[in-house]
Amino acid sequence: MTKDRKYKKYSNKLDYSYSFGTYATIDMIKHNPIVVECVLVHKKLEQSSLKALLDVCEEHGISVNQNCNKVIERIRTKGSYNVIGIFKKFERKLDSYSNHVVLVNPSDMGNVGTIMRTCLGFGISDIAIVSPAVDVFNPKVVRASMGAIFQINFKYYDSFKEYEENFEERDLYTFILNSAVDLKSLNRDLGKKYSLIFGNESSGLDKSFSKVGQSVYIKHNNKIDSLNLGIAVGIALYHFQ
Amino acid sequence: MTKDRKYKKYSNKLDYSYSFGTYATIDMIKHNPIVVECVLVHKKLEQSSLKALLDVCEEHGISVNQNCNKVIERIRTKGSYNVIGIFKKFERKLDSYSNHVVLVNPSDMGNVGTIMRTCLGFGISDIAIVSPAVDVFNPKVVRASMGAIFQINFKYYDSFKEYEENFEERDLYTFILNSAVDLKSLNRDLGKKYSLIFGNESSGLDKSFSKVGQSVYIKHNNKIDSLNLGIAVGIALYHFQ
Repeated sequence: MTKDRKYKKYSNKLDYSYSFGTYATIDMIKHNPIVVECVLVHKKLEQSSLKALLDVCEEHGISVNQNCNKVIERIRTKGSYNVIGIFKKFERKLDSYSNHVVLVNPSDMGNVGTIMRTCLGFGISDIAIVSPAVDVFNPKVVRASMGAIFQINFKYYDSFKEYEENFEERDLYTFILNSAVDLKSLNRDLGKKYSLIFGNESSGLDKSFSKVGQSVYIKHNNKIDSLNLGIAVGIALYHFQ
Repeated sequence: MTKDRKYKKYSNKLDYSYSFGTYATIDMIKHNPIVVECVLVHKKLEQSSLKALLDVCEEHGISVNQNCNKVIERIRTKGSYNVIGIFKKFERKLDSYSNHVVLVNPSDMGNVGTIMRTCLGFGISDIAIVSPAVDVFNPKVVRASMGAIFQINFKYYDSFKEYEENFEERDLYTFILNSAVDLKSLNRDLGKKYSLIFGNESSGLDKSFSKVGQSVYIKHNNKIDSLNLGIAVGIALYHFQ
Protein backbone atom coordinates (compact mmCIF):
# COMPACT_ATOMS: atom_id res chain seq x y z
CA MET A 1 0.00 0.00 0.00
CA THR A 2 1.25 3.48 -0.80
CA LYS A 3 0.80 6.38 1.57
CA ASP A 4 -2.72 7.59 2.16
CA ARG A 5 -2.56 10.52 -0.21
CA LYS A 6 -5.77 12.51 -0.09
CA TYR A 7 -7.13 12.05 -3.57
CA LYS A 8 -9.92 14.51 -4.29
CA LYS A 9 -12.85 14.82 -6.66
CA TYR A 10 -11.41 15.88 -10.00
CA SER A 11 -10.64 19.55 -10.58
CA ASN A 12 -8.60 21.14 -13.36
CA LYS A 13 -6.20 22.50 -10.73
CA LEU A 14 -4.93 19.07 -9.76
CA ASP A 15 -1.76 17.77 -11.42
CA TYR A 16 -3.28 14.32 -11.79
CA SER A 17 -6.52 12.86 -13.13
CA TYR A 18 -8.47 9.60 -13.20
CA SER A 19 -9.51 6.75 -15.44
CA PHE A 20 -12.75 5.16 -14.28
CA GLY A 21 -13.42 1.44 -14.59
CA THR A 22 -11.42 -1.75 -14.94
CA TYR A 23 -11.29 -1.88 -18.72
CA ALA A 24 -10.34 1.77 -19.17
CA THR A 25 -7.64 1.51 -16.51
CA ILE A 26 -6.08 -1.63 -17.98
CA ASP A 27 -6.16 0.02 -21.40
CA MET A 28 -4.38 3.10 -20.04
CA ILE A 29 -1.68 1.01 -18.37
CA LYS A 30 -1.05 -0.94 -21.57
CA HIS A 31 -0.75 2.14 -23.75
CA ASN A 32 0.90 4.68 -21.49
CA PRO A 33 2.24 3.09 -18.26
CA ILE A 34 4.70 5.94 -17.64
CA VAL A 35 1.95 8.38 -16.64
CA VAL A 36 0.20 6.00 -14.24
CA GLU A 37 0.78 6.72 -10.53
CA CYS A 38 -1.22 3.92 -8.98
CA VAL A 39 -4.53 2.08 -9.07
CA LEU A 40 -7.29 2.12 -6.46
CA VAL A 41 -9.60 -0.87 -6.05
CA HIS A 42 -12.96 -1.11 -4.28
CA LYS A 43 -13.74 -4.26 -2.31
CA LYS A 44 -16.79 -4.85 -4.52
CA LEU A 45 -14.63 -5.58 -7.59
CA GLU A 46 -15.26 -9.12 -8.78
CA GLN A 47 -12.41 -11.62 -8.62
CA SER A 48 -11.87 -12.22 -12.35
CA SER A 49 -11.54 -8.48 -13.02
CA LEU A 50 -9.19 -8.10 -10.05
CA LYS A 51 -7.00 -10.89 -11.39
CA ALA A 52 -6.74 -9.29 -14.85
CA LEU A 53 -5.95 -5.91 -13.28
CA LEU A 54 -3.30 -7.27 -10.91
CA ASP A 55 -1.58 -9.10 -13.78
CA VAL A 56 -1.23 -6.02 -15.95
CA CYS A 57 -0.15 -3.87 -13.00
CA GLU A 58 2.52 -6.37 -12.02
CA GLU A 59 3.79 -6.53 -15.58
CA HIS A 60 4.25 -2.74 -15.65
CA GLY A 61 5.37 -2.25 -12.05
CA ILE A 62 2.32 -0.29 -10.97
CA SER A 63 1.16 -0.36 -7.38
CA VAL A 64 -2.38 -1.38 -6.57
CA ASN A 65 -4.19 -0.21 -3.44
CA GLN A 66 -7.03 -2.52 -2.52
CA ASN A 67 -9.98 -1.77 -0.26
CA CYS A 68 -9.93 1.92 -1.13
CA ASN A 69 -13.69 2.02 -0.75
CA LYS A 70 -14.02 5.44 0.82
CA VAL A 71 -11.59 7.19 -1.53
CA ILE A 72 -13.29 5.66 -4.57
CA GLU A 73 -16.77 6.58 -3.40
CA ARG A 74 -15.54 10.14 -2.89
CA ILE A 75 -13.85 10.47 -6.29
CA ARG A 76 -16.20 8.68 -8.68
CA THR A 77 -18.82 11.02 -10.04
CA LYS A 78 -21.36 8.78 -11.74
CA GLY A 79 -21.69 5.06 -12.10
CA SER A 80 -20.46 2.42 -9.77
CA TYR A 81 -16.87 2.08 -10.91
CA ASN A 82 -14.83 -0.19 -8.67
CA VAL A 83 -11.46 0.67 -10.18
CA ILE A 84 -9.86 4.09 -10.53
CA GLY A 85 -6.50 4.63 -12.17
CA ILE A 86 -4.56 7.75 -11.17
CA PHE A 87 -2.36 9.32 -13.80
CA LYS A 88 -0.10 12.38 -13.95
CA LYS A 89 -1.21 14.99 -16.46
CA PHE A 90 1.02 15.02 -19.52
CA GLU A 91 1.47 16.65 -22.89
CA ARG A 92 3.26 15.21 -25.85
CA LYS A 93 4.85 17.27 -28.60
CA LEU A 94 3.15 17.05 -31.96
CA ASP A 95 5.05 15.34 -34.72
CA SER A 96 6.05 17.82 -37.46
CA TYR A 97 6.04 15.07 -40.06
CA SER A 98 2.45 13.98 -39.42
CA ASN A 99 -1.00 15.27 -40.32
CA HIS A 100 -2.76 17.19 -37.57
CA VAL A 101 -6.22 18.09 -36.38
CA VAL A 102 -6.45 21.56 -34.81
CA LEU A 103 -9.40 22.31 -32.52
CA VAL A 104 -9.87 26.02 -31.89
CA ASN A 105 -11.66 26.71 -28.59
CA PRO A 106 -13.59 23.43 -28.29
CA SER A 107 -15.98 23.60 -25.35
CA ASP A 108 -17.80 20.27 -25.18
CA MET A 109 -16.01 17.54 -23.28
CA GLY A 110 -17.85 14.63 -24.86
CA ASN A 111 -17.11 16.00 -28.33
CA VAL A 112 -13.38 16.31 -27.68
CA GLY A 113 -13.13 12.78 -26.31
CA THR A 114 -15.05 11.38 -29.28
CA ILE A 115 -12.85 13.38 -31.67
CA MET A 116 -9.70 11.89 -30.10
CA ARG A 117 -11.10 8.40 -30.63
CA THR A 118 -12.12 9.17 -34.22
CA CYS A 119 -8.71 10.69 -35.03
CA LEU A 120 -6.93 7.62 -33.69
CA GLY A 121 -9.13 5.33 -35.78
CA PHE A 122 -8.47 7.32 -38.96
CA GLY A 123 -4.71 7.48 -38.42
CA ILE A 124 -4.31 11.01 -37.07
CA SER A 125 -2.25 10.88 -33.86
CA ASP A 126 -1.57 14.60 -33.37
CA ILE A 127 -4.13 17.06 -32.05
CA ALA A 128 -3.49 20.74 -31.34
CA ILE A 129 -5.91 22.55 -29.05
CA VAL A 130 -6.13 26.33 -29.06
CA SER A 131 -7.13 27.87 -25.70
CA PRO A 132 -9.52 28.76 -24.21
CA ALA A 133 -10.72 25.19 -24.46
CA VAL A 134 -11.96 22.26 -22.43
CA ASP A 135 -9.62 20.54 -20.02
CA VAL A 136 -8.78 17.30 -21.81
CA PHE A 137 -7.87 15.63 -18.52
CA ASN A 138 -11.37 15.95 -17.15
CA PRO A 139 -12.53 12.35 -16.59
CA LYS A 140 -15.49 13.04 -18.92
CA VAL A 141 -13.10 13.61 -21.83
CA VAL A 142 -10.93 10.66 -20.80
CA ARG A 143 -14.00 8.41 -20.73
CA ALA A 144 -15.40 9.65 -24.07
CA SER A 145 -12.00 9.13 -25.71
CA MET A 146 -12.21 5.44 -24.75
CA GLY A 147 -8.47 5.23 -24.17
CA ALA A 148 -7.48 7.28 -27.24
CA ILE A 149 -6.09 10.09 -25.05
CA PHE A 150 -3.29 7.72 -23.96
CA GLN A 151 -2.32 6.89 -27.54
CA ILE A 152 -2.13 10.29 -29.23
CA ASN A 153 0.00 13.42 -29.03
CA PHE A 154 -1.76 16.60 -28.02
CA LYS A 155 -0.66 20.05 -27.01
CA TYR A 156 -2.34 23.28 -26.00
CA TYR A 157 -1.50 26.56 -27.75
CA ASP A 158 -2.38 30.06 -26.57
CA SER A 159 -3.33 31.15 -30.07
CA PHE A 160 -3.64 29.75 -33.56
CA LYS A 161 -0.68 31.93 -34.56
CA GLU A 162 1.52 30.16 -32.05
CA TYR A 163 0.53 26.80 -33.54
CA GLU A 164 1.04 28.02 -37.11
CA GLU A 165 4.54 29.35 -36.41
CA ASN A 166 5.60 25.97 -35.11
CA PHE A 167 4.45 24.03 -38.16
CA GLU A 168 5.02 25.99 -41.31
CA GLU A 169 5.58 23.34 -43.94
CA ARG A 170 2.06 22.04 -44.46
CA ASP A 171 -1.29 22.70 -46.10
CA LEU A 172 -3.93 24.22 -43.86
CA TYR A 173 -7.64 23.46 -44.38
CA THR A 174 -10.14 25.48 -42.38
CA PHE A 175 -13.70 24.22 -42.01
CA ILE A 176 -15.91 27.27 -42.43
CA LEU A 177 -19.64 27.32 -43.19
CA ASN A 178 -19.65 30.03 -45.84
CA SER A 179 -16.51 28.98 -47.63
CA ALA A 180 -16.30 28.53 -51.38
CA VAL A 181 -15.01 24.98 -51.79
CA ASP A 182 -17.09 21.86 -51.20
CA LEU A 183 -15.05 19.14 -49.47
CA LYS A 184 -16.21 16.68 -52.16
CA SER A 185 -14.66 18.71 -54.98
CA LEU A 186 -11.49 19.74 -53.16
CA ASN A 187 -8.29 19.30 -55.18
CA ARG A 188 -5.30 18.86 -52.98
CA ASP A 189 -1.62 17.98 -53.18
CA LEU A 190 -1.68 14.39 -51.95
CA GLY A 191 2.04 14.45 -51.21
CA LYS A 192 1.81 17.24 -48.65
CA LYS A 193 1.20 17.05 -44.94
CA TYR A 194 -1.93 18.82 -43.79
CA SER A 195 -3.72 20.26 -40.78
CA LEU A 196 -7.52 20.22 -40.56
CA ILE A 197 -8.77 23.16 -38.52
CA PHE A 198 -12.15 23.31 -36.77
CA GLY A 199 -13.78 26.03 -34.68
CA ASN A 200 -15.89 26.10 -31.55
CA GLU A 201 -19.20 24.13 -31.39
CA SER A 202 -21.41 27.23 -31.39
CA SER A 203 -19.41 29.98 -33.03
CA GLY A 204 -17.19 28.13 -35.52
CA LEU A 205 -13.99 29.75 -36.78
CA ASP A 206 -13.97 33.56 -36.71
CA LYS A 207 -13.34 35.80 -39.70
CA SER A 208 -9.58 35.96 -39.15
CA PHE A 209 -9.42 32.37 -40.42
CA SER A 210 -10.70 33.30 -43.86
CA LYS A 211 -7.10 34.23 -44.71
CA VAL A 212 -5.67 30.99 -43.38
CA GLY A 213 -4.94 28.22 -45.92
CA GLN A 214 -7.84 26.84 -47.94
CA SER A 215 -11.34 27.04 -46.52
CA VAL A 216 -13.66 24.09 -47.08
CA TYR A 217 -17.26 23.26 -46.25
CA ILE A 218 -19.18 20.05 -45.77
CA LYS A 219 -22.34 20.38 -47.80
CA HIS A 220 -25.63 20.01 -45.99
CA ASN A 221 -29.05 21.62 -46.46
CA ASN A 222 -30.20 24.73 -44.61
CA LYS A 223 -32.61 22.89 -42.31
CA ILE A 224 -29.83 22.82 -39.74
CA ASP A 225 -27.46 25.63 -38.75
CA SER A 226 -24.39 23.42 -38.71
CA LEU A 227 -23.23 19.87 -38.19
CA ASN A 228 -22.19 18.72 -34.74
CA LEU A 229 -18.43 19.30 -34.35
CA GLY A 230 -17.61 15.62 -33.83
CA ILE A 231 -19.58 14.65 -36.93
CA ALA A 232 -17.84 17.32 -39.02
CA VAL A 233 -14.41 16.12 -37.90
CA GLY A 234 -15.42 12.50 -38.57
CA ILE A 235 -16.56 13.27 -42.12
CA ALA A 236 -13.45 15.34 -42.86
CA LEU A 237 -11.10 12.63 -41.59
CA TYR A 238 -12.97 9.97 -43.55
CA HIS A 239 -12.68 12.07 -46.68
CA PHE A 240 -8.95 12.87 -46.24
CA GLN A 241 -8.05 9.29 -45.32
CA MET B 1 -53.48 31.49 -17.48
CA THR B 2 -54.42 27.86 -18.01
CA LYS B 3 -55.37 25.58 -15.13
CA ASP B 4 -52.63 24.75 -12.67
CA ARG B 5 -51.85 21.35 -14.09
CA LYS B 6 -49.19 19.65 -12.00
CA TYR B 7 -46.32 19.38 -14.44
CA LYS B 8 -43.68 16.99 -13.15
CA LYS B 9 -40.03 16.31 -13.71
CA TYR B 10 -39.79 14.38 -16.98
CA SER B 11 -40.45 10.64 -16.95
CA ASN B 12 -41.05 8.31 -19.88
CA LYS B 13 -44.49 7.50 -18.44
CA LEU B 14 -45.83 11.00 -19.04
CA ASP B 15 -47.76 11.65 -22.24
CA TYR B 16 -46.04 15.00 -22.67
CA SER B 17 -42.45 16.27 -22.65
CA TYR B 18 -40.50 19.53 -22.58
CA SER B 19 -38.36 21.80 -24.69
CA PHE B 20 -35.94 23.82 -22.57
CA GLY B 21 -34.95 27.39 -23.43
CA THR B 22 -36.37 30.28 -25.43
CA TYR B 23 -34.70 29.49 -28.73
CA ALA B 24 -35.57 25.78 -28.67
CA THR B 25 -39.16 26.52 -27.74
CA ILE B 26 -39.65 29.12 -30.47
CA ASP B 27 -38.10 26.70 -32.94
CA MET B 28 -40.49 23.93 -31.88
CA ILE B 29 -43.53 26.20 -32.23
CA LYS B 30 -42.46 27.29 -35.71
CA HIS B 31 -41.91 23.75 -36.97
CA ASN B 32 -44.57 21.75 -35.22
CA PRO B 33 -47.15 23.98 -33.47
CA ILE B 34 -49.79 21.23 -33.42
CA VAL B 35 -48.01 19.27 -30.69
CA VAL B 36 -47.44 22.26 -28.40
CA GLU B 37 -49.72 22.42 -25.35
CA CYS B 38 -48.51 25.63 -23.74
CA VAL B 39 -45.43 27.58 -22.72
CA LEU B 40 -44.22 28.34 -19.19
CA VAL B 41 -42.19 31.47 -18.49
CA HIS B 42 -40.03 32.33 -15.46
CA LYS B 43 -40.08 35.90 -14.20
CA LYS B 44 -36.32 36.13 -14.78
CA LEU B 45 -36.75 35.96 -18.57
CA GLU B 46 -35.41 39.13 -20.15
CA GLN B 47 -37.85 41.43 -21.95
CA SER B 48 -36.55 41.06 -25.52
CA SER B 49 -36.75 37.26 -25.34
CA LEU B 50 -40.23 37.47 -23.82
CA LYS B 51 -41.36 39.74 -26.65
CA ALA B 52 -40.08 37.31 -29.34
CA LEU B 53 -41.71 34.39 -27.57
CA LEU B 54 -45.07 36.12 -27.12
CA ASP B 55 -45.12 37.10 -30.79
CA VAL B 56 -44.61 33.57 -32.07
CA CYS B 57 -47.09 32.14 -29.53
CA GLU B 58 -49.74 34.64 -30.56
CA GLU B 59 -49.18 33.85 -34.21
CA HIS B 60 -49.80 30.14 -33.58
CA GLY B 61 -52.49 30.49 -30.93
CA ILE B 62 -50.44 29.00 -28.12
CA SER B 63 -51.09 30.00 -24.51
CA VAL B 64 -48.27 31.42 -22.42
CA ASN B 65 -48.21 31.14 -18.63
CA GLN B 66 -45.99 33.77 -17.08
CA ASN B 67 -44.47 33.76 -13.59
CA CYS B 68 -44.34 29.98 -13.47
CA ASN B 69 -41.21 30.19 -11.36
CA LYS B 70 -41.85 27.26 -9.05
CA VAL B 71 -43.01 24.88 -11.77
CA ILE B 72 -40.00 25.72 -13.93
CA GLU B 73 -37.54 25.30 -11.09
CA ARG B 74 -39.09 21.91 -10.40
CA ILE B 75 -39.00 20.69 -13.99
CA ARG B 76 -35.69 21.98 -15.34
CA THR B 77 -32.89 19.53 -14.72
CA LYS B 78 -29.74 21.43 -15.54
CA GLY B 79 -29.04 24.99 -16.57
CA SER B 80 -31.05 28.04 -15.79
CA TYR B 81 -33.67 27.86 -18.51
CA ASN B 82 -36.39 30.48 -18.10
CA VAL B 83 -38.71 29.09 -20.76
CA ILE B 84 -40.18 25.61 -20.98
CA GLY B 85 -42.41 24.48 -23.83
CA ILE B 86 -44.78 21.60 -23.14
CA PHE B 87 -45.60 19.30 -26.03
CA LYS B 88 -47.70 16.18 -26.48
CA LYS B 89 -45.74 13.10 -27.46
CA PHE B 90 -46.24 12.18 -31.09
CA GLU B 91 -45.17 9.75 -33.77
CA ARG B 92 -45.25 10.34 -37.49
CA LYS B 93 -45.49 7.57 -40.06
CA LEU B 94 -42.42 7.05 -42.16
CA ASP B 95 -42.69 7.92 -45.83
CA SER B 96 -42.44 4.79 -48.02
CA TYR B 97 -41.06 6.82 -50.90
CA SER B 98 -38.12 8.24 -48.93
CA ASN B 99 -34.75 6.97 -47.78
CA HIS B 100 -34.61 5.89 -44.13
CA VAL B 101 -32.17 5.53 -41.29
CA VAL B 102 -32.91 2.56 -39.00
CA LEU B 103 -31.43 2.58 -35.50
CA VAL B 104 -31.54 -0.84 -33.85
CA ASN B 105 -31.53 -0.60 -30.02
CA PRO B 106 -29.79 2.77 -29.66
CA SER B 107 -29.05 3.47 -25.99
CA ASP B 108 -27.32 6.84 -25.82
CA MET B 109 -29.64 9.85 -25.71
CA GLY B 110 -27.10 12.40 -26.89
CA ASN B 111 -26.21 10.18 -29.85
CA VAL B 112 -29.82 9.81 -30.97
CA GLY B 113 -30.46 13.56 -30.79
CA THR B 114 -27.29 14.30 -32.76
CA ILE B 115 -28.23 11.65 -35.32
CA MET B 116 -31.65 13.28 -35.83
CA ARG B 117 -29.95 16.62 -36.47
CA THR B 118 -27.42 15.05 -38.86
CA CYS B 119 -30.14 13.18 -40.77
CA LEU B 120 -32.13 16.37 -41.21
CA GLY B 121 -29.08 18.22 -42.53
CA PHE B 122 -28.31 15.47 -45.03
CA GLY B 123 -31.87 15.22 -46.29
CA ILE B 124 -33.09 12.10 -44.48
CA SER B 125 -36.39 12.87 -42.75
CA ASP B 126 -37.44 9.36 -41.75
CA ILE B 127 -35.97 7.46 -38.83
CA ALA B 128 -37.10 4.03 -37.64
CA ILE B 129 -36.15 2.98 -34.12
CA VAL B 130 -36.19 -0.68 -33.11
CA SER B 131 -36.98 -1.30 -29.41
CA PRO B 132 -35.61 -1.65 -26.80
CA ALA B 133 -34.23 1.82 -27.32
CA VAL B 134 -33.90 5.24 -25.74
CA ASP B 135 -36.99 7.34 -25.21
CA VAL B 136 -36.69 10.00 -27.90
CA PHE B 137 -38.92 12.35 -25.93
CA ASN B 138 -36.50 12.60 -23.05
CA PRO B 139 -35.52 16.27 -22.90
CA LYS B 140 -31.86 15.25 -23.34
CA VAL B 141 -32.64 13.82 -26.78
CA VAL B 142 -34.85 16.80 -27.64
CA ARG B 143 -32.04 19.18 -26.71
CA ALA B 144 -29.32 17.25 -28.57
CA SER B 145 -31.51 17.16 -31.68
CA MET B 146 -31.54 20.98 -31.67
CA GLY B 147 -35.08 21.10 -32.99
CA ALA B 148 -34.65 18.32 -35.55
CA ILE B 149 -37.08 16.04 -33.67
CA PHE B 150 -39.91 18.42 -34.63
CA GLN B 151 -39.04 18.29 -38.32
CA ILE B 152 -38.63 14.60 -39.01
CA ASN B 153 -40.79 11.47 -39.08
CA PHE B 154 -39.91 8.74 -36.63
CA LYS B 155 -41.57 5.58 -35.47
CA TYR B 156 -40.77 2.79 -33.02
CA TYR B 157 -40.89 -0.87 -34.12
CA ASP B 158 -40.87 -3.91 -31.85
CA SER B 159 -38.47 -5.76 -34.11
CA PHE B 160 -36.49 -5.23 -37.28
CA LYS B 161 -38.74 -7.77 -38.97
CA GLU B 162 -41.75 -5.57 -38.30
CA TYR B 163 -39.96 -2.64 -39.92
CA GLU B 164 -38.82 -4.72 -42.87
CA GLU B 165 -42.31 -6.04 -43.63
CA ASN B 166 -43.65 -2.52 -43.84
CA PHE B 167 -41.09 -1.30 -46.35
CA GLU B 168 -40.25 -4.02 -48.82
CA GLU B 169 -39.35 -2.12 -51.96
CA ARG B 170 -35.93 -0.77 -51.07
CA ASP B 171 -32.23 -1.62 -50.74
CA LEU B 172 -31.05 -2.37 -47.22
CA TYR B 173 -27.50 -1.54 -46.12
CA THR B 174 -26.35 -2.86 -42.75
CA PHE B 175 -23.30 -1.32 -41.09
CA ILE B 176 -21.34 -4.24 -39.67
CA LEU B 177 -17.70 -4.23 -38.55
CA ASN B 178 -16.62 -7.50 -40.14
CA SER B 179 -18.48 -7.11 -43.39
CA ALA B 180 -16.88 -7.60 -46.79
CA VAL B 181 -17.63 -4.35 -48.60
CA ASP B 182 -15.86 -1.06 -47.89
CA LEU B 183 -18.29 1.88 -48.03
CA LYS B 184 -15.88 3.67 -50.38
CA SER B 185 -16.06 0.93 -53.00
CA LEU B 186 -19.77 0.16 -52.69
CA ASN B 187 -21.60 -0.10 -56.00
CA ARG B 188 -25.24 0.69 -55.64
CA ASP B 189 -28.33 1.25 -57.74
CA LEU B 190 -28.64 5.03 -57.53
CA GLY B 191 -32.27 4.94 -58.63
CA LYS B 192 -33.43 2.86 -55.69
CA LYS B 193 -34.63 3.99 -52.29
CA TYR B 194 -32.52 2.74 -49.42
CA SER B 195 -32.44 2.20 -45.67
CA LEU B 196 -29.19 2.53 -43.71
CA ILE B 197 -29.23 0.26 -40.68
CA PHE B 198 -27.07 0.73 -37.57
CA GLY B 199 -26.79 -1.28 -34.36
CA ASN B 200 -26.39 -0.46 -30.70
CA GLU B 201 -23.42 1.68 -29.51
CA SER B 202 -21.67 -1.18 -27.71
CA SER B 203 -22.83 -4.35 -29.37
CA GLY B 204 -23.49 -3.32 -32.98
CA LEU B 205 -25.85 -5.38 -35.15
CA ASP B 206 -26.12 -9.04 -34.17
CA LYS B 207 -25.44 -12.00 -36.46
CA SER B 208 -29.01 -12.24 -37.73
CA PHE B 209 -28.34 -9.09 -39.75
CA SER B 210 -25.65 -10.75 -41.86
CA LYS B 211 -28.50 -12.08 -44.02
CA VAL B 212 -30.18 -8.70 -44.36
CA GLY B 213 -29.45 -6.70 -47.51
CA GLN B 214 -25.86 -5.67 -48.22
CA SER B 215 -23.45 -5.29 -45.32
CA VAL B 216 -20.97 -2.43 -45.44
CA TYR B 217 -18.12 -1.20 -43.24
CA ILE B 218 -16.46 2.14 -42.73
CA LYS B 219 -12.74 1.52 -42.91
CA HIS B 220 -10.62 2.53 -39.92
CA ASN B 221 -7.51 1.06 -38.33
CA ASN B 222 -7.56 -1.42 -35.46
CA LYS B 223 -6.40 1.06 -32.83
CA ILE B 224 -10.05 1.59 -31.96
CA ASP B 225 -12.77 -1.03 -31.56
CA SER B 226 -15.36 0.92 -33.50
CA LEU B 227 -16.42 4.41 -34.45
CA ASN B 228 -18.87 6.31 -32.27
CA LEU B 229 -22.41 5.60 -33.56
CA GLY B 230 -23.15 9.24 -34.39
CA ILE B 231 -19.90 9.56 -36.34
CA ALA B 232 -20.62 6.35 -38.28
CA VAL B 233 -24.11 7.58 -39.23
CA GLY B 234 -22.68 10.99 -40.22
CA ILE B 235 -20.06 9.44 -42.50
CA ALA B 236 -22.58 7.07 -44.08
CA LEU B 237 -25.07 9.86 -44.76
CA TYR B 238 -22.36 12.07 -46.21
CA HIS B 239 -21.28 9.25 -48.48
CA PHE B 240 -24.81 8.37 -49.66
CA GLN B 241 -25.78 11.99 -50.15
